[in-house]
Amino acid sequence: MINNDTIIALATASGNGAIAVIRVSGNEALELCSPLFEAKSGISILDQKSHTLQLGTIQDGQRILDEVLVSVFRGYKSYTGEPTVEISCHGSSFIQKEIIQLLIKKGCRTAQPGEFTLRAFLNGKMDLSQAEAVADLVSSDNAASHQLAMQQMRGGFTNQIQELRQELLDFASLMELELDFSEEDVEFANREQFQALVLKIQKVLSRLIDSFAVGNVIKNGIPVAIVGEPNVGKSTLLNALLNEERAIVSEIAGTTRDTIEDEISMGGIGFRFIDTAGIRETQDTIEGLGIQRTFEKIKQSQVIIKLIDSPKLFDDQQKLRTTEWKRIKADIHQLETDFPERSFLLLANKADLLSPENKDLLTKEFEDLLFISAKDKTGIEEIQTRLLSFVDDGALRNNDTIVTNSRHYNALLLALEEINKVQEGLNENLTTDLLAIDIRQALYHFGEITGEVTNDELLGNIFANFCIGK
Amino acid sequence: MINNDTIIALATASGNGAIAVIRVSGNEALELCSPLFEAKSGISILDQKSHTLQLGTIQDGQRILDEVLVSVFRGYKSYTGEPTVEISCHGSSFIQKEIIQLLIKKGCRTAQPGEFTLRAFLNGKMDLSQAEAVADLVSSDNAASHQLAMQQMRGGFTNQIQELRQELLDFASLMELELDFSEEDVEFANREQFQALVLKIQKVLSRLIDSFAVGNVIKNGIPVAIVGEPNVGKSTLLNALLNEERAIVSEIAGTTRDTIEDEISMGGIGFRFIDTAGIRETQDTIEGLGIQRTFEKIKQSQVIIKLIDSPKLFDDQQKLRTTEWKRIKADIHQLETDFPERSFLLLANKADLLSPENKDLLTKEFEDLLFISAKDKTGIEEIQTRLLSFVDDGALRNNDTIVTNSRHYNALLLALEEINKVQEGLNENLTTDLLAIDIRQALYHFGEITGEVTNDELLGNIFANFCIGK
Repeated sequence: MINNDTIIALATASGNGAIAVIRVSGNEALELCSPLFEAKSGISILDQKSHTLQLGTIQDGQRILDEVLVSVFRGYKSYTGEPTVEISCHGSSFIQKEIIQLLIKKGCRTAQPGEFTLRAFLNGKMDLSQAEAVADLVSSDNAASHQLAMQQMRGGFTNQIQELRQELLDFASLMELELDFSEEDVEFANREQFQALVLKIQKVLSRLIDSFAVGNVIKNGIPVAIVGEPNVGKSTLLNALLNEERAIVSEIAGTTRDTIEDEISMGGIGFRFIDTAGIRETQDTIEGLGIQRTFEKIKQSQVIIKLIDSPKLFDDQQKLRTTEWKRIKADIHQLETDFPERSFLLLANKADLLSPENKDLLTKEFEDLLFISAKDKTGIEEIQTRLLSFVDDGALRNNDTIVTNSRHYNALLLALEEINKVQEGLNENLTTDLLAIDIRQALYHFGEITGEVTNDELLGNIFANFCIGK
Repeated sequence: MINNDTIIALATASGNGAIAVIRVSGNEALELCSPLFEAKSGISILDQKSHTLQLGTIQDGQRILDEVLVSVFRGYKSYTGEPTVEISCHGSSFIQKEIIQLLIKKGCRTAQPGEFTLRAFLNGKMDLSQAEAVADLVSSDNAASHQLAMQQMRGGFTNQIQELRQELLDFASLMELELDFSEEDVEFANREQFQALVLKIQKVLSRLIDSFAVGNVIKNGIPVAIVGEPNVGKSTLLNALLNEERAIVSEIAGTTRDTIEDEISMGGIGFRFIDTAGIRETQDTIEGLGIQRTFEKIKQSQVIIKLIDSPKLFDDQQKLRTTEWKRIKADIHQLETDFPERSFLLLANKADLLSPENKDLLTKEFEDLLFISAKDKTGIEEIQTRLLSFVDDGALRNNDTIVTNSRHYNALLLALEEINKVQEGLNENLTTDLLAIDIRQALYHFGEITGEVTNDELLGNIFANFCIGK
C-alpha cells in the first residue's frame, strides 16, 4: 500500500469560491512544482524555506494559468510527513482543473480518498484512531460530535489504550521469558500485580464500551419520530425547531447548508427527525401498507414525539369530546405498547386556543403533557430541554473519553473478551503458555485500534470513507 | 465607503472539504486573532513573520475549536494591502461557522461581497479594471474567458488607457496654461502633435470598442439554438457534444460541476445551447404560443443548428420522398428568412442509415450539409470545427487586448465620443477653452475605467457582484 509517488488533489470544497487550495505531497513535490511556478521574488520553490508563502504565477510554458500563493512544507514537518506544496489559487473550477491537469501531466498522480491522511499514518504522524478522527472532524456538524472528534484526534482514549497495552506487553514478555526457563519453575511476572492490571484493564474497557452508547448517539444523532394525525402541525413544529438553527446559520453567509434535511443540533447534540408525515395513526395500527411503513420508521426512532391537536378534544361549548379523548388515549397506549424502550414526549399543539380550565383538565388526564403552539413558536425551548433530558450526556459534560467509532467498539469488545479469558485462566491457575496465548490475542485487538496491528484491507476500508484531498 | 475595521469571511467554496480557509483582514487582524491561537511553537501571531505559516490550535477559552495552520501577511504585502491572517482549518461547515462566529464575537465584522478586493483597490494594490478581472477570473469556466480575465488582471488594456490618458493630460495641462496667459496669445501645446495624439487615441479606442464583440462572446459564450422536429436527435447530439467535456472533468474528482446546464467549452470558447426541445417547426412558423416561444428563443441565438432526420427523406425503396424533402427545404428557407445574420449549420443526423447514393443526392441538394450520427458520435469533431469557424477569434489567437466588460465598453464609447468632438473642434479651430472642456470629459471617461474617477455607487455596483470572501 505504501507508494512514494507524488499525489495531488483539491483540498478545499469543490465549486467556485474566492480561492481554492490544491495540495501536492510526495518526495518529488517540490521538484515537480518548481518549474511551473515563477515567484515574484525570483526565489525557486526548491530554495523556499519550510512553512513560508510566496506570491507568483503558475505557468504552462508561456501560458499563465493563475496568480497563486505557494506554501512549502519540507521534510517531516508537513501534514503527511512528506515534502508538501500547497497552491492557493483563484477559486474557479476551471482554474482548479487546469492546475491539477498540468501537474498530472508533469508527473503527479490524483490522490485516492484519504490518501494524504493515510500517508500521515504510514509516516507515523498520527495513529490510526487519530486518522479516523480527521474524517469525523470534517463531517462533524454539531458541537458534541465535533468535541469528540477533536478529543480523539488529539490522542483521546488511544493514549490510555496504549499505556495499558504497554503494561500488558511487559507482563507478556516476562511470562514468555518464564517459558524459556520452564524447566526451572521461575516466576518473573508477579501474579498479584498482573491480577491487578487485568482488573484495571477490565474496568477501563468496560467503561469505554459503555460509552459507545452515548458516543454513537452523538456521532449519528438521535432519531426522533414525530407522530400525529394530518394537519396536527408536524411540519410547523419541525420548522419552529429548525428556525432556531437557521437563524444562527444565516448570520454567516457562505456557511449555509444547502438542505437542512430535518437534522437539528440542539445543545450541541444532533437530532434526526424521521419523516412520518401524512399517515394517520389509529387503533388498528398495523393495517395497510402505509401504516406498516410508518411502523417501520417509528421503529428506527429513539424518541417519539406524539403531537395532538388539543382544541379538537373540545366541542364548541368547550366541553370534552369523550370519544375523541378516548381515541387519543388509546393511540398513546398503542404507541407505548408497540414501541417499548423509547422516550415519549406528548405535546398538545395549538394550546393558544385552549381555555385555562381545559388546560387544567388535560394536565390531569395526561402525564407530562407539554402545551405548545408550533405556529407561535411557544413552548419550543421547553421541547428542546425535554429532548436533551433524554440524552445521557453526563460523560460528555465531564469531558470523559467516549468511543464513537464502531470499529473501535468492536475491537474493545474483543479485547475485553480475551482479558476475561485471562482473568478466568488466572483464577483456574492455567499454565503460563496458555495464559500467554490469550494475552497475545488481547494485545492484538488493542493494536487494531491504534493501528499497530493493521493490514491493507483494513486501511482500505477506513480510508475509502474519506473525501479526496484529505 | 472606506472602513478600517477588521473583516472576516470564508474564502474557499462553501460546503465540506478537506480544509477550508478563513480570511481576516484589517488593521487589527493580527491583534484579534492572536489571543485565540496557540501556536505549537509558542510564537504569538504578533511575533510571526510575514508570509509564514504556523501550526496550532484555535481556542475559545479552554475549548479547542480546531487544529489549524495560520498564515500571516503583514502591512502592505497582503492581497488587501492590510494586515491579514488566513486560517486554514478542517473543512467541516460546522468548524468554519464556529471559528467565524468566535472571531465575530471578538470584534471582526462579516465581509461584504468583494470587500477584500475593494480594499485592495482602495489601498492601491490594483486598479478598478484589475479588481473587476478578479471576479471574472473566479467565474471563468473556459480557456478563452480565463485568458482574457488573466490578461486584464495583469494590467491588460488599462496600461494602454493609462498611457494615453497621461499624454492627453499633459496636453490638457499645457492648454490650460495657455488659458492663464490668454491675453498673450501663446501656444504651449503643439497643435500638430496634439492632432497626432487625437488620431492615435481614436484608433486605439475604435479597436478596443470593436474587440468587445468578440470579448462579449468569449465572456458570455455563444448562444446556439438546435432546432429540429421531435425525435430528430437533439438531446443525443447535445450529449455527444457534452461527453467530450464530461470525460475530461470526471478525470479529476472533486472538480465536477453539479450541472452542466448545456454549456460546453470547445476550443476554449464557451457555447451555450438553447433548449428548443419538443417543439415542432413547420412552415406556419409563428402559429400558436409554443411556436412563438421557440421563435423568441431562437432569436437569442447567434448560431442555428438545423438537425434533420435524413433517413426520413427516403422511402422503403430508398427513393426520395418529394413532399418531405420540399418541406425541409421550406423550413430551412423560413429559418433563414426569420433569423437573418445568424450562422447556419445544417446537420443530416442518422447518416449511418443512408446509402452512399442518397448521401450524394443530399450533398447536391443542400449546401454545406454535414453528415453525422449523434448516437454513434460520428461527425462530432467536424461540428466543433464548424462552430469554432463562426467565431472571429483572430484577436484572441494574436493575444490582442480584448474588452470583455460592458462597463468598460460604455466608458470607451463615451471617451471616443468626446475625442471625436475634440477632433472636430481642432478642425474647426475651436477656442482653447472650449477644446479643454471636451478633453476633460474624455479624461473623465478614461478615468472611469481604471478607477481614478469613481464614486460609492459605482463601487457598490461593481463589488456587489463579487462573491463573499473575495
